[in-house]
Amino acid sequence: MAMEGYWLFLTLLVSALLVGFLSVIFTLVWVLHYREGLGWDGTELEFNWHPVLLVTGFVFIQGIAIIVYRLPWTWKCSKLLMKSIHAGLNAVAAILAIIALVAVFDNHNVNGIPNMYSLHSWVGLIAVICYLLQLLSGFVVFLLPWAPLSLRAFLMPIHVYSGLVIFGTVIATVLMGVTEKLIFGLRAPASYSTFPPEGVFANSLGLLILVFGALIFWIVTRPQWKRPKEPNSTLLQPNGGTAEGARGSMAANSGYNMDKSDSELNNEVAARKRNFALDEAGQRSTM
Amino acid sequence: MAMEGYWLFLTLLVSALLVGFLSVIFTLVWVLHYREGLGWDGTELEFNWHPVLLVTGFVFIQGIAIIVYRLPWTWKCSKLLMKSIHAGLNAVAAILAIIALVAVFDNHNVNGIPNMYSLHSWVGLIAVICYLLQLLSGFVVFLLPWAPLSLRAFLMPIHVYSGLVIFGTVIATVLMGVTEKLIFGLRAPASYSTFPPEGVFANSLGLLILVFGALIFWIVTRPQWKRPKEPNSTLLQPNGGTAEGARGSMAANSGYNMDKSDSELNNEVAARKRNFALDEAGQRSTM
Repeated sequence: MAMEGYWLFLTLLVSALLVGFLSVIFTLVWVLHYREGLGWDGTELEFNWHPVLLVTGFVFIQGIAIIVYRLPWTWKCSKLLMKSIHAGLNAVAAILAIIALVAVFDNHNVNGIPNMYSLHSWVGLIAVICYLLQLLSGFVVFLLPWAPLSLRAFLMPIHVYSGLVIFGTVIATVLMGVTEKLIFGLRAPASYSTFPPEGVFANSLGLLILVFGALIFWIVTRPQWKRPKEPNSTLLQPNGGTAEGARGSMAANSGYNMDKSDSELNNEVAARKRNFALDEAGQRSTM
Repeated sequence: MAMEGYWLFLTLLVSALLVGFLSVIFTLVWVLHYREGLGWDGTELEFNWHPVLLVTGFVFIQGIAIIVYRLPWTWKCSKLLMKSIHAGLNAVAAILAIIALVAVFDNHNVNGIPNMYSLHSWVGLIAVICYLLQLLSGFVVFLLPWAPLSLRAFLMPIHVYSGLVIFGTVIATVLMGVTEKLIFGLRAPASYSTFPPEGVFANSLGLLILVFGALIFWIVTRPQWKRPKEPNSTLLQPNGGTAEGARGSMAANSGYNMDKSDSELNNEVAARKRNFALDEAGQRSTM
């Protein structure tokens, strides 16, 4: 499919996949090489599932779920299929996040460590609860067929906004978690402040996760990389609209070869009116 | 000035100001009531300027600087004045951030504590460096009159994106800082894990800062709350444009009373063409 800035998109997408994948690998190396490994026995081995599952699900998979509509190769797939993939990836991330919470609560309870006292735990639990609410509301409103278009149009900007705020909050929570783990885990003689290999390694993991978030945020906020509207949508038909509008829309969908002069105006008009716009079945995300 | 959703904007703005102000107050109470107070002698009193200056400048003032173009009461002010205020607020925030770094390096050096070993310090220093580069490039390209419009148009989306990523990164860094300080500062008998008042209080500060960031992010990403284009801009004149475009633009600027049917089309056209649009003197931020 034709797409503006296709090669830049591809470069950023591959970078995001690489950095995200590397984050997961770094987390695995951290717990397997520098820490005690993995297990499910209440010890540190069980705790170690916490970072592994969260970086895999809540960072990497959630990040991919956020940009899945923007993959141009999926634009010929039905919207319903893409919504299902978006919801499915987020559901997988949610399940991994819940198992990750079980792991840490289990580990704390077995070892008599109090739960929910740190800022990391407060923000993290809020993020998980908001994520589940987002998943549920998204499923009911956007995936099930019964919600009225007006409700979808009203909730779509909120859904997009919440998704990005939750994603950013998750990244902040992971960075707090890395900080906590390094301070608690690294004690004399290899204190965090003596630049031990584990500290430098886990700091680098933190940077990777930050870069991953920044890449996803760039990809998802470029208006020209949005999935095009469904051509057969009734809402797309100009209803009292003008030839300019129709020509513009078609040109936009068939190669983006419009002149620049009137794009400014449309840009302005669109921005001013976006609040009123009935989103096409609530399927178009707008920032 | 007329503005879509004026009362919602006002409510969110007042909330943001309140939450931001409360964050600064909480930080002051933290260092003055729970900690050692403020001073400039290399001790903890000097360290304490670090959180106070960063929450004041790098969180609160930076947040206000981000949304300053969106205050409808400023829409009659010249764009140059608003740019100066935007740049000025960010410059103040940068100066406070630098003093905050001096405070912590001073304190570390006097007490023989290593610098730059933690993820908090890595991410924080990267954020400050990016912020200074952003400030400098913004000053040269958007405030000084010599940059060509094409450069401004090219850099504006990057400027907006970088600004938001830096702001989010700063918030994540502050949350890591709160975490570090509570773990290091609270030792037996009042360990962080026993829910001491200071821990609960500083956790609440972390939540306030997160809410502040979320409010600013909502305000700055609503397209209908953008500052309108300058009416006398030559780029606004329809150059080979159509009556639809002109009518739409005028209607949008004088009360947003257009019908919904064609807004979808314009929306789509604008999104597809935004990449091509020469931004009016690079003054219009687009996400």
